Amino acid sequence: MSQLVAIGEPLIRLSPPAGRQIATADRLDSHVGGAACNVAVAAAGLGVDAAVAASVGAGPLADRIAATLRAHDVRPHLHRDPDGRVGCYWVEAVGSRRVHYDRADTPMATATPDELLARVDLDAAELVYVSGIVPALGEAAREAAPAIVEAARAAGCTTVVDANYRGRLWQPEAAAEAYAAMFAHADIIAIAARDAAAVLGHTGDAVSVAETLCAEYAATHAICTRGAAGAVAASADGSTATQAALDGPLRDPIGAGDAFVGAVCAALLADHAIDRALADGAAAAAVARATHGDLTPLSPAALTGVADAQIDR
Amino acid sequence: MSQLVAIGEPLIRLSPPAGRQIATADRLDSHVGGAACNVAVAAAGLGVDAAVAASVGAGPLADRIAATLRAHDVRPHLHRDPDGRVGCYWVEAVGSRRVHYDRADTPMATATPDELLARVDLDAAELVYVSGIVPALGEAAREAAPAIVEAARAAGCTTVVDANYRGRLWQPEAAAEAYAAMFAHADIIAIAARDAAAVLGHTGDAVSVAETLCAEYAATHAICTRGAAGAVAASADGSTATQAALDGPLRDPIGAGDAFVGAVCAALLADHAIDRALADGAAAAAVARATHGDLTPLSPAALTGVADAQIDR
Amino acid sequence: MSQLVAIGEPLIRLSPPAGRQIATADRLDSHVGGAACNVAVAAAGLGVDAAVAASVGAGPLADRIAATLRAHDVRPHLHRDPDGRVGCYWVEAVGSRRVHYDRADTPMATATPDELLARVDLDAAELVYVSGIVPALGEAAREAAPAIVEAARAAGCTTVVDANYRGRLWQPEAAAEAYAAMFAHADIIAIAARDAAAVLGHTGDAVSVAETLCAEYAATHAICTRGAAGAVAASADGSTATQAALDGPLRDPIGAGDAFVGAVCAALLADHAIDRALADGAAAAAVARATHGDLTPLSPAALTGVADAQIDR
Amino acid sequence: MSQLVAIGEPLIRLSPPAGRQIATADRLDSHVGGAACNVAVAAAGLGVDAAVAASVGAGPLADRIAATLRAHDVRPHLHRDPDGRVGCYWVEAVGSRRVHYDRADTPMATATPDELLARVDLDAAELVYVSGIVPALGEAAREAAPAIVEAARAAGCTTVVDANYRGRLWQPEAAAEAYAAMFAHADIIAIAARDAAAVLGHTGDAVSVAETLCAEYAATHAICTRGAAGAVAASADGSTATQAALDGPLRDPIGAGDAFVGAVCAALLADHAIDRALADGAAAAAVARATHGDLTPLSPAALTGVADAQIDR
Amino acid sequence: MSQLVAIGEPLIRLSPPAGRQIATADRLDSHVGGAACNVAVAAAGLGVDAAVAASVGAGPLADRIAATLRAHDVRPHLHRDPDGRVGCYWVEAVGSRRVHYDRADTPMATATPDELLARVDLDAAELVYVSGIVPALGEAAREAAPAIVEAARAAGCTTVVDANYRGRLWQPEAAAEAYAAMFAHADIIAIAARDAAAVLGHTGDAVSVAETLCAEYAATHAICTRGAAGAVAASADGSTATQAALDGPLRDPIGAGDAFVGAVCAALLADHAIDRALADGAAAAAVARATHGDLTPLSPAALTGVADAQIDR
Amino acid sequence: MSQLVAIGEPLIRLSPPAGRQIATADRLDSHVGGAACNVAVAAAGLGVDAAVAASVGAGPLADRIAATLRAHDVRPHLHRDPDGRVGCYWVEAVGSRRVHYDRADTPMATATPDELLARVDLDAAELVYVSGIVPALGEAAREAAPAIVEAARAAGCTTVVDANYRGRLWQPEAAAEAYAAMFAHADIIAIAARDAAAVLGHTGDAVSVAETLCAEYAATHAICTRGAAGAVAASADGSTATQAALDGPLRDPIGAGDAFVGAVCAALLADHAIDRALADGAAAAAVARATHGDLTPLSPAALTGVADAQIDR
Repeated sequence: MSQLVAIGEPLIRLSPPAGRQIATADRLDSHVGGAACNVAVAAAGLGVDAAVAASVGAGPLADRIAATLRAHDVRPHLHRDPDGRVGCYWVEAVGSRRVHYDRADTPMATATPDELLARVDLDAAELVYVSGIVPALGEAAREAAPAIVEAARAAGCTTVVDANYRGRLWQPEAAAEAYAAMFAHADIIAIAARDAAAVLGHTGDAVSVAETLCAEYAATHAICTRGAAGAVAASADGSTATQAALDGPLRDPIGAGDAFVGAVCAALLADHAIDRALADGAAAAAVARATHGDLTPLSPAALTGVADAQIDR
Repeated sequence: MSQLVAIGEPLIRLSPPAGRQIATADRLDSHVGGAACNVAVAAAGLGVDAAVAASVGAGPLADRIAATLRAHDVRPHLHRDPDGRVGCYWVEAVGSRRVHYDRADTPMATATPDELLARVDLDAAELVYVSGIVPALGEAAREAAPAIVEAARAAGCTTVVDANYRGRLWQPEAAAEAYAAMFAHADIIAIAARDAAAVLGHTGDAVSVAETLCAEYAATHAICTRGAAGAVAASADGSTATQAALDGPLRDPIGAGDAFVGAVCAALLADHAIDRALADGAAAAAVARATHGDLTPLSPAALTGVADAQIDR
Repeated sequence: MSQLVAIGEPLIRLSPPAGRQIATADRLDSHVGGAACNVAVAAAGLGVDAAVAASVGAGPLADRIAATLRAHDVRPHLHRDPDGRVGCYWVEAVGSRRVHYDRADTPMATATPDELLARVDLDAAELVYVSGIVPALGEAAREAAPAIVEAARAAGCTTVVDANYRGRLWQPEAAAEAYAAMFAHADIIAIAARDAAAVLGHTGDAVSVAETLCAEYAATHAICTRGAAGAVAASADGSTATQAALDGPLRDPIGAGDAFVGAVCAALLADHAIDRALADGAAAAAVARATHGDLTPLSPAALTGVADAQIDR
Repeated sequence: MSQLVAIGEPLIRLSPPAGRQIATADRLDSHVGGAACNVAVAAAGLGVDAAVAASVGAGPLADRIAATLRAHDVRPHLHRDPDGRVGCYWVEAVGSRRVHYDRADTPMATATPDELLARVDLDAAELVYVSGIVPALGEAAREAAPAIVEAARAAGCTTVVDANYRGRLWQPEAAAEAYAAMFAHADIIAIAARDAAAVLGHTGDAVSVAETLCAEYAATHAICTRGAAGAVAASADGSTATQAALDGPLRDPIGAGDAFVGAVCAALLADHAIDRALADGAAAAAVARATHGDLTPLSPAALTGVADAQIDR
Repeated sequence: MSQLVAIGEPLIRLSPPAGRQIATADRLDSHVGGAACNVAVAAAGLGVDAAVAASVGAGPLADRIAATLRAHDVRPHLHRDPDGRVGCYWVEAVGSRRVHYDRADTPMATATPDELLARVDLDAAELVYVSGIVPALGEAAREAAPAIVEAARAAGCTTVVDANYRGRLWQPEAAAEAYAAMFAHADIIAIAARDAAAVLGHTGDAVSVAETLCAEYAATHAICTRGAAGAVAASADGSTATQAALDGPLRDPIGAGDAFVGAVCAALLADHAIDRALADGAAAAAVARATHGDLTPLSPAALTGVADAQIDR
Repeated sequence: MSQLVAIGEPLIRLSPPAGRQIATADRLDSHVGGAACNVAVAAAGLGVDAAVAASVGAGPLADRIAATLRAHDVRPHLHRDPDGRVGCYWVEAVGSRRVHYDRADTPMATATPDELLARVDLDAAELVYVSGIVPALGEAAREAAPAIVEAARAAGCTTVVDANYRGRLWQPEAAAEAYAAMFAHADIIAIAARDAAAVLGHTGDAVSVAETLCAEYAATHAICTRGAAGAVAASADGSTATQAALDGPLRDPIGAGDAFVGAVCAALLADHAIDRALADGAAAAAVARATHGDLTPLSPAALTGVADAQIDR
């Protein structure tokens, strides 16, 4: 029944307040994150009927993931492995931001495409998002990720793949291979300019990266993001669109890229053009940077509020 | 016995920490606010014997208002309506700041001038401040507000009216009419340039707004504030004074305009000239922006501290 | 689609930590409560497909109610009145517990049966719970409450009415009349022995209260609760069942009675006998007293955990 | 203008939450305490026009003391020594409660009677309370304390002296001498049975302690407190009154004895008899034990609430 | 150089405040725990030169363990596996206490005796404690645990083994076998009566359990603990000693058994007799139950404080 | 055994969160600070075997200092005066930062060189740091400070003196005299440009200040810091080195200068050249400004992280 299904691993994030360190902090904030959750929550806030499909472990951490997704009006289609663990990650922001993963050997690393697709009603879904982190999780996942994108497209869904390169999880060569396999079935491709350079060797400017990927994989849109320098989309019709990043407070940037993608998906599902989608994405990213935690509860009013605040400055 | 009496509705403000949303926040900060409270507390911190006169509901929220005003050395001259409620407002600051009022049907909306003036010793007061929000609260309040200003001036008090337009409470036309009725008896008029344009249709620059209002209402001083662009005063003697805004951390801007007015009142009560008053106001506003909550506990040292910090930059 | 629909007003509860007072507390815990929410959340935790149907105001407080219910896997079937307010209540626990309501003039006070029933799919529901607080909210609500119970029974649902007398909201005479009108259509009646005495004049012991009500209203079960002294049920078949209260930490007793009722409903929906239902209710109430906030997230394991802990002592 | 003036040193108390230790706690609660403050705040909550007279240091800690007393509607009649420090004390409650004083060399230790009496309008006051801790603070204070009691009685005030023995501050012999000098001018004497034994050598039961002190010093009432065993008063008319301690949560017992004395003073100022005064004192102590911090904000309703809660059990 | 070396896995414990659940808690307390850490910290607080020897993973969680042990004056002799993870566990206390382990596949599960003994200077140590949890961690650990005890005794150290049965980690049969292997080289054996029954089948009273174990393994002392019913020791000289549990607040019982053992070790290292050791252990356990977190910072004064508080009641 | 021994007074710092005032804050953060502690902790984080030598009071505040230093792997060589107090200071940051000292009459003010040197193993130490705050603490300290520097150099240690002028503690003339006496025996001199001007009258640019001091006192390096404008070193070989300040978040600047000096010491102890030392110092200061509290837990990775983050901007 969901319009959008995001597939990827939900994670528990633990972090002390900015300016304090894990080694000496007595209290930690507990957030839910993971690219798929972030994308689905962003889209749901903008009116999309959204779900997350994943395999997770059992216990109170899985309960926390499910309860948090539901609170944001996202359906948790979770396979719960009673013997599995739930992936965690630890973040501290002092002089620079440091991330420590503890997500090895989770059920998502060994989930088969069938197990995951069993959680997805492809006939009902309009758009399926698969995070490029999935194939980094293990051998089985490396097989599963492109198979899922392929199956989703075959079922008539719009498919969205965001590369999301994580250098702590795998090497560029392996990632490049996996991305190629996923992009081959993707209608919409998203990648950071930095990752395009480091992983794919596309060292040109963002426009050329987007155009190259759009053409190479016959995608509908290829989006290249450049952080504070905004984003660019190249489309199958040969057009390109550019969007500046919006200003605003920087409290917690983690998840801003996923909020961008979630808002782009929501705009496209609402039949908006790609430039409106990028504009919504930029506003969503600004809200995300101003929001503690990975998840960004959006609303049309929140996007407008951020856009209007630009004018005031 | 109070030098300054501020008349306006005290409110309870509830807000999650910046970067968190009301919908998902388990903990909220509880502050006392409302323009009259803000002005009185700012003035009290600068040595003025100050009071707030208002009609409020009963129960622990009214206790909170009284205790907080007393803690800041402001006398709470409150009529407590045993059947009334206490106005609340809810604020969240994520991508942009959003305010949600829950202040309908409070005793202040129906208070008569006599009820409010019974809380004020006009013979003892030197300065009476009335917030331009009061007439927005209800029909009775719309009658009461100008009557109170008139009575205060008749009793020999310096009268101060700050427009404080709140678009969520009423329409510009109604506000324009009410402001005119109040300004007619005001010695000192304050208005934001933005509100002068939106409500009064004065779209000129701040100097011309101030000069026009000063002349139109035969005020001693008319002050036009421009946020980060500072403030301007036009005086009955034909002079104008300008004051830049001061730099400093932006933690919570709510109440900064009221701290400005409170410090201006304190300076004028101490027989300082209008340019010194504007300078004190600008420093007070900088402290207010750096202070959590609507109320700004000031001191002469705090004003100096902020002014000195400008030089360091 | 829901098995259980609970009808009653959702509330925002604001409270300082135990041992602190509202008048001087800078931070408040924000909880969602209200009898219908409490009952639905308790039942949902025990596997019931549950919903809350209500009319509420708009804004972030309504968002908080919806998000919180969803987090507990309860469907929020809320009519949102764009001009309405959301009821709040304030609690402090120092020497004794004190409750201050700010819930006048909410949409629930004027909702018609049709407006509320439009939120309920009576054909799908198995059990409809209506809180005895509803008729205390206003004239319209006093008409609506029994009409809803009647309609639910007519549609084939099991109907549950808990008296929940609130002395701050109305007088015993009015309550007695409203309870009679609701009990007339109720399959399951619940009332505290204290309220049965104060409102209905049933001053006998709990067994006689339950038997009298069961007979008078031809109910399937009438349950009379006695706080620390446990509960009694009288059934249409002439049997009575008694259940002792369970021991455990007392952190926040608000909502314990509703958790009891929610667990009883869950047990009956699972076709357990009334004595098992009372046992589950007693365990649920023990968890509720040990849980901060009105809502009690239950699970079969949590009930077992509390029951087992009795043995250890 | 104050009915009750309490003379004694205000202190800042710093303490981690119960169950945590100062050595490893990152966050501390900041409270205002000191017997005189505690007594005055308790009485003010019960409607007494109350003040604290003391000599303190300067800076933000003195501001905190003044703001806190005002918040509780107590007038801070403080002489601020610009070179003085403000006394602090540190409390942790783990297996047992431990107190660490850092209050040496405060202005109160060297204040003369004239300096302190200059802060008190003896003509206006009806009752003057002097803490038996004052003479423990230093040589000057040892002279000043009885002189103040004597002057207050000479001015027609009812004089109240509570022994409040602190073994960390002085020896029993010195305390006994100082108490004798103060009791000689006291209308109302209060002492814990434990201190009467340890300091004065009165090892009899509480009734005999109270009777002995009442007779020895020709007091109007002598009150002997016994913690959980309640309190006893012996009066000049030969009567004795006894009062049990009330039950309730134990969150923070510090200040309970002072709340007792403050409520007794309030009752006597309201012309209640000594047995009603003891009853109010017992209820006040129960609220104090349930309240975090030394200060206990009371109200007639709070006393009633605690007393009613006794019946429920 | 350390007198006491405790060998066992350090853990990070994450828990919401009592009365809140992991599924909905935004903030968690971060503690360091694990039986070896608990024992070493308890002993260090009583003046013992103590260390923990263990193999742990890398990253900020390992830093937290090291920093926390050092803060309590315990030397962290940690082998840090750069590819390993740090064991965590999650605790919530609502109706009953629930523990969720996430400690699979940690370096401690595969550490060899040589790797661990390389962290211990057996020539310098007087007492070596090995937790009975170690052999539950994996196959290698099951081999390593008794080998370490044997090596320590061979080096002339007093060896202490506490069974600490954890039903979530292994089955009684495996535990019984491992305990037998460890007890065979232990000078001091500790076991809960409950575990003696469930794992070893010793269903007699605590005295007989202690006597049986003392004889069976030719131990110097065998201690059988009974929770609220106190502890019993049987000694090689044929004597038995019994000790009641002490009263006090119950804030967080986790770690109380380890604090008991740590204090017993400290007393024996100070050449106190076994009855004094049990008394110190009981006082330490009372402090531990009143302290948040697993670790219990003790001091001789803290033991005395708890013991004295018994008399007051 | 320590490579680096820092001599200076440890302090407890108490501060409300930024944007709140001490007068109204119910909760305070408790930090450990003081220049010597800050320097030692910074160096220890970078791998130096570090200690703090000082004389302090007794009680839980001294325990806090010791535990905190140990947590950061710094040996607390503290003489504990059982009758002494522990220095505290109070900080609030609203419009500007305000510091209130409460550190009079601490044991450090009267400690003799012998008492302090008894805590230092000069034969083992490679580098001895003495804060220029020490001679401000009292007459004895004014004698002791240069004597300690002299003794350390005589023992073959590298001696480091940082002026650290504190205008609230003494006058420029006295400071100038004390600095001269200490600099005379210093191998490395550090001073802020602002203090060089205000105290020493060196109003030239930073390079000339450094060159002048280096020559005047025949130092190996003289370092002149200029806040946001970076730092300059003049060396005995006639060379000068300059280093820009690094960008980053400003959360709490207190202790940044000491982190700079600690990192410089660590670099020099690792035989790095002065320009690398200044670069490390600048990165350490950036981490310190982004870290809450005075102490800055550093690591080589943290320095790299900050330096890398510069490139991103």
